[in-house]
Amino acid sequence: MNNIEIKVYKNLMGENDKWAKKTRALLKDKNIRMLNFIGSPGSGKTALLEKTAERLSGNIRFAVLEGDIETTRDAERLAKHGIYTSQLNTGGACHLEAKLVHCALRDLPLDDLDFVVVENVGNLVCPAEFDIGEHAKIAILSVTEGEDKPIKYPLIFRQAKAIALTKTDLLPYLSFDLDSCLNFMRQINASSPIFQVSSVNGNGLDKWAEWVSMNVTVHGS
Amino acid sequence: MNNIEIKVYKNLMGENDKWAKKTRALLKDKNIRMLNFIGSPGSGKTALLEKTAERLSGNIRFAVLEGDIETTRDAERLAKHGIYTSQLNTGGACHLEAKLVHCALRDLPLDDLDFVVVENVGNLVCPAEFDIGEHAKIAILSVTEGEDKPIKYPLIFRQAKAIALTKTDLLPYLSFDLDSCLNFMRQINASSPIFQVSSVNGNGLDKWAEWVSMNVTVHGS
Repeated sequence: MNNIEIKVYKNLMGENDKWAKKTRALLKDKNIRMLNFIGSPGSGKTALLEKTAERLSGNIRFAVLEGDIETTRDAERLAKHGIYTSQLNTGGACHLEAKLVHCALRDLPLDDLDFVVVENVGNLVCPAEFDIGEHAKIAILSVTEGEDKPIKYPLIFRQAKAIALTKTDLLPYLSFDLDSCLNFMRQINASSPIFQVSSVNGNGLDKWAEWVSMNVTVHGS
Repeated sequence: MNNIEIKVYKNLMGENDKWAKKTRALLKDKNIRMLNFIGSPGSGKTALLEKTAERLSGNIRFAVLEGDIETTRDAERLAKHGIYTSQLNTGGACHLEAKLVHCALRDLPLDDLDFVVVENVGNLVCPAEFDIGEHAKIAILSVTEGEDKPIKYPLIFRQAKAIALTKTDLLPYLSFDLDSCLNFMRQINASSPIFQVSSVNGNGLDKWAEWVSMNVTVHGS
């Protein structure tokens, strides 16, 4: 039984990686960067995208591929902000796979875009295991989830090229130990920038948007 | 490729269900109920267990099988409350499988217990798909995650025999629409009780503990 499981797992990942590679080639050809936002349900991914759009508006054009198990609610939220959005419903699956992302990406007006954000299914675990051809995974953690999450769910924090610690406006009402959280993040990931942000009071969003701006406009890598 | 994927998936689930069946037989033999707590990372599962223990203390004896990808932090928290706890580390997997639960269950002092709680890996998606032989799945959602989560992640809310809406002490600081959230829960699940609780100010915990007490002491089903 064990051998069969391992063999098929490799097959599945091989199929996924084939599509991720196609996506990378397409993005390179079009000179477009792609970010993969990963965090728990309700960690503030969509709100952060709304606020990012406000700050980049006019300068840098991006589209969002919105991953959800069901509903089009997040895509509708983003569309209200004038963000070009496609909905990717997984119909039960806990993460986005490279093939679905690739097909949706091909339907975007790529020649008019600077970068693409994939908002993955709300899940701190599984999406981290799947390469979808992105240039960078971004870890999103809200302070309401507790300071120990980086060491309890280390894979995504290890892989992240940037970490957004969201909902900092709620810190006065929580017993959240910010120093411990930052130390845990540094245990797992010594170098990626950590942005403490609030989509409610705007704290930290300018620095975050500046990082996005710098990292999506270095074309051709 | 599609055929192979489907075939193996069925095999894996068959293996899981075999162990779930063994667990059910063991629990029936020992006259013990088992609850499966499922919610996002940081949704308040462990805090709710701590508070449940305080309220049941002395009357009803229970143990916790604590599922985490890594670390023993939650088990240590529960041990401080005098709760008999075993740690189940999945080493990367996003949910608990029935075999691991069964083996850990056999090592518990079952003759001295009234019920067992499995705290699943923090994940609102995958754990809902795996039968581990429990009598009831309990959905845990914190108000900080947003009111639309029941319709975005419907499977666990559909299956839940009870729903705990946690962290209600934070409602004054959020733009959370409580009525919408309850309506969404009722769209997905018309009948299971919904408990609005706060482990910080204690609201709703007596009613919740009463429900647990009633539902874990009806032996022999």
